[in-house]
Amino acid sequence: MNETEIAERMKHLEGWSRDDETIVKTYRFANYHETMAFVNATAWISHRADHHPDLTVGYNQCTVAYTTHSAGGLSRKDFDCAAKVDALFAS
Amino acid sequence: MNETEIAERMKHLEGWSRDDETIVKTYRFANYHETMAFVNATAWISHRADHHPDLTVGYNQCTVAYTTHSAGGLSRKDFDCAAKVDALFAS
Repeated sequence: MNETEIAERMKHLEGWSRDDETIVKTYRFANYHETMAFVNATAWISHRADHHPDLTVGYNQCTVAYTTHSAGGLSRKDFDCAAKVDALFAS
Repeated sequence: MNETEIAERMKHLEGWSRDDETIVKTYRFANYHETMAFVNATAWISHRADHHPDLTVGYNQCTVAYTTHSAGGLSRKDFDCAAKVDALFAS
């Protein structure tokens, strides 16, 4: 993806920030059970999409970071999956 | 815990390293399913002990980091839980 495409896709994501070749968002939860349920649902989506984010899991928050190692940077898959995780969180 | 106690407990842990007020270990797995099963088993232990590590989850690895926020540093609970996660991994 070129910078123009990346900027365009970023516009359509809420709460995600770009850190070089990675896009990142932190989700917050009421308790550990909610956090872990989210982690597992995100893992399921990752499995289905065959695209695995880095997850940083604390007691009541989870940071999701997408990049495409095989592309050496951001790809459409990162933005598609970010939107799926947002939809999951909002559901 | 004082430095002598910490050093003593570190001796009995394999593969853990100390990073200031945190102890850290990275576990590696054959695939994403194994990784996620480990994450969930570790979450269960964390729930039972009421002591929650930070987990950094990738495709085939998980880094576990323990500290005791309420104690402002390392506590016996960190070392007890680290040993439990090691036992889980070895089981």
